[in-house]
Amino acid sequence: MVPHLVTALTGPLLDLEKKILAATPAIERWFRMEWQEHTPPFYCSVDLRNAGYKLAPVDTNLFPGGFNNLATEMLPLAVQAAMAAIDKYCPDARNLLLVPEGHTRNPHYLQNVARLMQIFRQTGLHVRLGSLSPEITQPTPLALPDGNMLVVEPMVRSANGRRLGLVDFDPCTILLNNDLSAGIPSILENIHEQSVLPPLHAGWALRRKSNHLAAYDEVAKKFGKLIDVDPWMVNPFHTKCGAINFQEDQGSECLADNVTMLLAKIRKKYKEYGIKEKPFVIVKPDAGTYGMGIMTVRDASEVKDLTAKQRSKMSVIKDGVEINDILIQEGVPTFETMQDAVAEPVVYMIDRYVVGGFYRIHAERGVDQNLNAPGSQYVPLAFAQQHAVPDLKAKPGTAAPNRFYVYGVVARLGLLAASLEMERTDPNPEVY
Amino acid sequence: MVPHLVTALTGPLLDLEKKILAATPAIERWFRMEWQEHTPPFYCSVDLRNAGYKLAPVDTNLFPGGFNNLATEMLPLAVQAAMAAIDKYCPDARNLLLVPEGHTRNPHYLQNVARLMQIFRQTGLHVRLGSLSPEITQPTPLALPDGNMLVVEPMVRSANGRRLGLVDFDPCTILLNNDLSAGIPSILENIHEQSVLPPLHAGWALRRKSNHLAAYDEVAKKFGKLIDVDPWMVNPFHTKCGAINFQEDQGSECLADNVTMLLAKIRKKYKEYGIKEKPFVIVKPDAGTYGMGIMTVRDASEVKDLTAKQRSKMSVIKDGVEINDILIQEGVPTFETMQDAVAEPVVYMIDRYVVGGFYRIHAERGVDQNLNAPGSQYVPLAFAQQHAVPDLKAKPGTAAPNRFYVYGVVARLGLLAASLEMERTDPNPEVY
Repeated sequence: MVPHLVTALTGPLLDLEKKILAATPAIERWFRMEWQEHTPPFYCSVDLRNAGYKLAPVDTNLFPGGFNNLATEMLPLAVQAAMAAIDKYCPDARNLLLVPEGHTRNPHYLQNVARLMQIFRQTGLHVRLGSLSPEITQPTPLALPDGNMLVVEPMVRSANGRRLGLVDFDPCTILLNNDLSAGIPSILENIHEQSVLPPLHAGWALRRKSNHLAAYDEVAKKFGKLIDVDPWMVNPFHTKCGAINFQEDQGSECLADNVTMLLAKIRKKYKEYGIKEKPFVIVKPDAGTYGMGIMTVRDASEVKDLTAKQRSKMSVIKDGVEINDILIQEGVPTFETMQDAVAEPVVYMIDRYVVGGFYRIHAERGVDQNLNAPGSQYVPLAFAQQHAVPDLKAKPGTAAPNRFYVYGVVARLGLLAASLEMERTDPNPEVY
Repeated sequence: MVPHLVTALTGPLLDLEKKILAATPAIERWFRMEWQEHTPPFYCSVDLRNAGYKLAPVDTNLFPGGFNNLATEMLPLAVQAAMAAIDKYCPDARNLLLVPEGHTRNPHYLQNVARLMQIFRQTGLHVRLGSLSPEITQPTPLALPDGNMLVVEPMVRSANGRRLGLVDFDPCTILLNNDLSAGIPSILENIHEQSVLPPLHAGWALRRKSNHLAAYDEVAKKFGKLIDVDPWMVNPFHTKCGAINFQEDQGSECLADNVTMLLAKIRKKYKEYGIKEKPFVIVKPDAGTYGMGIMTVRDASEVKDLTAKQRSKMSVIKDGVEINDILIQEGVPTFETMQDAVAEPVVYMIDRYVVGGFYRIHAERGVDQNLNAPGSQYVPLAFAQQHAVPDLKAKPGTAAPNRFYVYGVVARLGLLAASLEMERTDPNPEVY
């Protein structure tokens, strides 16, 4: 189940919300059954877009940053969920090695790392930070805005080469908070005696959004059947173009054709449901992103005639990686606003539990644009009603419906899809 | 791990607290390992007595009432823990049948039932109430103080006799909140297709405190070794007298001898640790109690010369059950007070998770008396520091130690002992 957090929505319940709230017992049972078959990712954050008529995940992050943006009152839930997760992978754990992003002294990110350390220390583990940066050759303090210090340390393989740790620290679990955009460093390869979580193929060196979306298609289909809604209500259309080279202007035809095709499909759905919005698609790299290389497109002509600047912007993402495969995804406008800015909810999960969320807001972006961009701000979601868990059966008027529940459900659809995706893309499936 | 709740303690950390806090990672790891071997009770509340020099469970309740006395801000934790518990016993559950105490319209108890229903409904289950009272022959509404209604319904066995439910309600799990003091009703017997939780032998019809204490002796011994303290610091001495008949004044010699012996043992420990208190013991029935039939004894003469009134008071407990076996347990004075009244902490757990607690206070009772008696009041424990999970590694002064952690640890020792006790007293061990 999902804690009751405050959402930006205040109007009457929308159709999709009503259906999901009414089907709560069936939905929770279905998730329980799915988690009997599939292992949830260790942790996960899901960006959602709520258009009112539809609600969908637009990004499922397996190396979530931003734990510092959760309300501190969520911490006990996060700690309890982390206990369940640790229990599963390494009950005899004493030590956890957390591997953060390198090359960053971004104070927001460091606060995320500090928060993660706090959560795992509270489960009763010793937690230290291992760095993937070659320039970290000795324990290096990093100051946090609150005056505390983090210390990142160089990682070493054990004498027999089979384990990874710090000089005086042998972890049971190695928790990656580094999305491996720059490739899989050799120091992380061939570790068989310890749990590396998430697995290496969750990193953007290997992960492809298209695999995730294929798994999500299945999950959405099952879910649509379960609660009797068109799966499209929780699943944007998508398609893919390979062999793209923006710099050399290769593949723009494929892109334009697919944009046209997708816009036509969306237009049809909009007609079916009487939606008055103007369709748009999001063009983004299949392999990773940091909010970089993302375009909002309303007409195929926009991708045919890219300016040199646009081509250059689209052609590399984080860590200078080149883009070859391009994903074209139905755009979901967000109809939520907070503090007069366009807002999208981000839901955080540890193991199979929803442990909190926040709104990402951006004052200078439109309802059809990516908000994960410089200038975005974060509004932690607090518990509604002084932390009371609302009671659906309570006398009318004594309890408000948990609208955040709906977000928690759709976010967990993304979580489940990530679980299937990880199973199917595992390069060493015999390990299971 | 244990959420950080406000405790009544404000002085400097005591020795035992310091040792437990310092050993946190070892303790949490040990619990994780123990829960690999043993299944925690579905739910449990543990009454603690904190004497400063020692901290011990004095009652481990497997049918906890009083969930309504937990702060509402604890509910999300309880729901998440309940999800984990349900997952274990009946992942495909749609329906849960809760069996409350019969014969009671006590509004406090009914609020506990309502709170439990709320928790389990929030896990996504349909929850209804089945009554063991023969006078409940049709759905019967019971008014709650807040204007809501509970409906208790008569239970029925299925046509083939193998399942228990309501006329139109087939549960996967039957959760007892009725301690079966009056014996095991036949309608609960021979149910093999559903989970009955806690198991029938957890009820006072079969359960004996002496079995629990024997298991607790083992747990305390292991724990003492783990953190290098005398197990006595968390474990009161105890012994037992059988074949007692208070009405006919049989067995008072055994009682007097054992009281003398136990007082001598306590006196020795007090001398060893320089404790200036006057030793006392608690005399109570081996089989169940509702705070009834409990005596504080400082000298053997007190049990030799019981008045007729005392004998009568001691001879029957709840539901008119006669007492034959008597437990004599070292009394642990409580050195905690709240609102100028003597206070003892009560810790609530679901599955292996601490989900909250409160202080039971009694203005008219002494530090050496049972507080679970008419006139007691309950003070919910809120999260300390605006819900922040304290960070042991934080800069000195920026975070307070979690003194409630120590209560959470000792309560979980009781939980673990209950788990061993249930395994060992299971009349049908082949079911495991």
